[in-house]
Amino acid sequence: MERHVLGAKQFNREQLEAILGAAQGMEQVARSGGSHLLTGKVMASLFFEPSTRTRFSFESAMTRLGGHVISTENASQFSSAIKGETLEDSIRVISSYADVIVMRHNEIGAAARAAKVSGVPILNAGDGAGEHPTQALLDLYTIQKELGSIDGISIAMVGDLTYGRTVHSLAYVLANFRDVTIWFTAPENTPIPQTVKDYLDEKGIRYHEESDLRHVAERVDVLYQTRVQKERFPSQEEYEKAAGRYIVDRALLDRMKKTSIVMHPLPRAGEITPDCDEDPRAAYFRQAENGVYLRMALLAQAVGKGISLVTKRDVQDTMIG
Amino acid sequence: MERHVLGAKQFNREQLEAILGAAQGMEQVARSGGSHLLTGKVMASLFFEPSTRTRFSFESAMTRLGGHVISTENASQFSSAIKGETLEDSIRVISSYADVIVMRHNEIGAAARAAKVSGVPILNAGDGAGEHPTQALLDLYTIQKELGSIDGISIAMVGDLTYGRTVHSLAYVLANFRDVTIWFTAPENTPIPQTVKDYLDEKGIRYHEESDLRHVAERVDVLYQTRVQKERFPSQEEYEKAAGRYIVDRALLDRMKKTSIVMHPLPRAGEITPDCDEDPRAAYFRQAENGVYLRMALLAQAVGKGISLVTKRDVQDTMIG
Amino acid sequence: MERHVLGAKQFNREQLEAILGAAQGMEQVARSGGSHLLTGKVMASLFFEPSTRTRFSFESAMTRLGGHVISTENASQFSSAIKGETLEDSIRVISSYADVIVMRHNEIGAAARAAKVSGVPILNAGDGAGEHPTQALLDLYTIQKELGSIDGISIAMVGDLTYGRTVHSLAYVLANFRDVTIWFTAPENTPIPQTVKDYLDEKGIRYHEESDLRHVAERVDVLYQTRVQKERFPSQEEYEKAAGRYIVDRALLDRMKKTSIVMHPLPRAGEITPDCDEDPRAAYFRQAENGVYLRMALLAQAVGKGISLVTKRDVQDTMIG
Repeated sequence: MERHVLGAKQFNREQLEAILGAAQGMEQVARSGGSHLLTGKVMASLFFEPSTRTRFSFESAMTRLGGHVISTENASQFSSAIKGETLEDSIRVISSYADVIVMRHNEIGAAARAAKVSGVPILNAGDGAGEHPTQALLDLYTIQKELGSIDGISIAMVGDLTYGRTVHSLAYVLANFRDVTIWFTAPENTPIPQTVKDYLDEKGIRYHEESDLRHVAERVDVLYQTRVQKERFPSQEEYEKAAGRYIVDRALLDRMKKTSIVMHPLPRAGEITPDCDEDPRAAYFRQAENGVYLRMALLAQAVGKGISLVTKRDVQDTMIG
Repeated sequence: MERHVLGAKQFNREQLEAILGAAQGMEQVARSGGSHLLTGKVMASLFFEPSTRTRFSFESAMTRLGGHVISTENASQFSSAIKGETLEDSIRVISSYADVIVMRHNEIGAAARAAKVSGVPILNAGDGAGEHPTQALLDLYTIQKELGSIDGISIAMVGDLTYGRTVHSLAYVLANFRDVTIWFTAPENTPIPQTVKDYLDEKGIRYHEESDLRHVAERVDVLYQTRVQKERFPSQEEYEKAAGRYIVDRALLDRMKKTSIVMHPLPRAGEITPDCDEDPRAAYFRQAENGVYLRMALLAQAVGKGISLVTKRDVQDTMIG
Repeated sequence: MERHVLGAKQFNREQLEAILGAAQGMEQVARSGGSHLLTGKVMASLFFEPSTRTRFSFESAMTRLGGHVISTENASQFSSAIKGETLEDSIRVISSYADVIVMRHNEIGAAARAAKVSGVPILNAGDGAGEHPTQALLDLYTIQKELGSIDGISIAMVGDLTYGRTVHSLAYVLANFRDVTIWFTAPENTPIPQTVKDYLDEKGIRYHEESDLRHVAERVDVLYQTRVQKERFPSQEEYEKAAGRYIVDRALLDRMKKTSIVMHPLPRAGEITPDCDEDPRAAYFRQAENGVYLRMALLAQAVGKGISLVTKRDVQDTMIG
């Protein structure tokens, strides 16, 4: 398997299943008190824009495996206008300090550029409006854990689907599974991009664009809610009209199947009302927790000996609890 | 014992004594090279406003016990105006990443709100003008270590007593001890609040309000100095008049008992002159050091198996040195 | 050996050789998976101005030895104008939290002031226009590793030699070796300071000031390139004229000896062109990597039992790999 994690399209089904299996193993490791698997290893958190949530998730994963972290949310100073350093130079230097680099950048393709010169694996933690592949993987892990299977599911992706890199990455990984149906439910001015639809066509994945959320809610196994971003709309009025149409509340939840789940990459603003939180179908906080297990699996694969070995024996031998 | 540490009033005498005893044990642990007691555990430092000093003290404590830390001084972005996330959502997510959350926030009651939804213990590292309970506990530990006993002491609290959350929290924990006398010495416009006095009345603690610091200095076992904050005064002139009246210098030290101590939560500006530092009664740097031991005890209690067990056996078994 | 590392002049030849030997040992340690030598020890990264690169290098070194790190790039708040704390007070407090303090400050002499009051070793990671001794040591280690010997070398120092603290510190450590020749190649308005030349005179080190880089390139074993800083020049035009004269490119490289190397403290802007990177003589990324090994040696010496012991036995016994 490729040691870098750059985009969701890089994985085939077999690899995805290996990752999900490893994440499941890591969940046991975490619950039983962690592991020494990555003792002596160093992960660099290199965030060119801050994202405490994603950074914490990776750093928690690394430390639960016994590894150490060196961390910055101000990585932009590495290549500041004054100093004029290229991203490539920064990565060459940092890859001599660390065994793996987790990187968030504001430019599309930055992670791929980094991977070209890095001596150690790059894990893309979001590159601008590009991709956020580890989010897609944890989403996939959540679906499998919650529903028992990914094959055969129908999923609604709701909100700003033009700029929401999370849903793009999720669509790409879902395209590896059988009999998946995707409903895209977005305000008119932020539809799912044609490039995503072309990819799904190519992979033979069924999808619908449907603006009526209630219609969709009744039909899906997974309602994947995202934020409608105010800055995408020409006026406050139009924003409120669009945002108001795509709120998950008790009334909407009542239309959904008993066996369905509601997901959200978080943070949420008002697009899922708090009175949904206690419903067992509200999976978004469990989804956040799953991110730690999934990232433990990715780190073990990147820094350690590969996932298959890792889950079978080494992890057992190095467990703390 | 409550696993959250939210405010100084939550502790009774028995619990305080258990904590002080545990801190004493932790001091031995730290001096002998640390412990593996919290290996595999993760503490999240969640500072919605920066306080490097307090953060460092907690993080030093966690690492001396073998634990790991994930840390931010920019936690305000979790609930930024743009993203609009509630504190409750942030805490729900982070409590799935960490085994304990140390939290500083600018709003009174934020730690209590966090505790309501958190799956892991919350340690309040200061909530606005509210409380700073771990400071009060380390102050208490310092008094006991320096003077041998807390019962029977007389203590002066000096400076801005209206807004100084440190002295409020300290007064609350002192109220659990016998025969304690408190002297409140503050500028006229920043007196000790009535609510604090009411609490002391209810607990039967003697206190005096006395504006003459020299009068007080001669009588007390502990002189607890704090900053007079410039921004509380209507003019530079009035500030200087008030600040100048409450300076601990050699002359004042000469009036104090040989067996007394001077404390300060630090940082100090000019309210204790540097020529006092070499006097053995200057306890403020020892007080800062005590913070690490006290917080080791709190972390062991919150994340581990409770203080009594911790100090008796586990710590011994896991000591590095 | 002095436990503080404050300036490059503090070391004699014997000490420098001990440090270089220890760095070599640490390189083996790092390559074989790290060590538990500093388990239970805490390093404080106290950066009054941000320098993620230097901070990461030290933190990677500490964690590769099993130690923990508490870290800030906002240390200036410790002594903020409002709070008014002195550097001395900050250091007294932090030295009770950590076993070693790595400090970057914007004022010349700050590290020396810190060392006067600190209870633990101070490692100066740059103090304003003053010194950057650990950079000089890693430069020295790189020269020895790349060329086999430091005695007898000729080295060109190129760029802004007035404000470049790196080259000053390097000149000071080189002065301990035999038969070293230094070429200073700088724009007219940023020459090497008289104080540095006086020091070299006193130590009997040969040096030349020569403005023609091509002339120098043909003669040296080491070309130590640095940035020409735009803000030192009266106009954009004059800056470009100066900067353009001191670029290392393929053409210049072709003039250099086959056995020579090009060094740079990084980050670079345009003063070494990327087409030099693949040349085996381009040593600047290896130089950055060497920083980790060198700082492992300094940390082991400061926190542990001294370098000689460390490299002989303890490190071996505590190796992870």
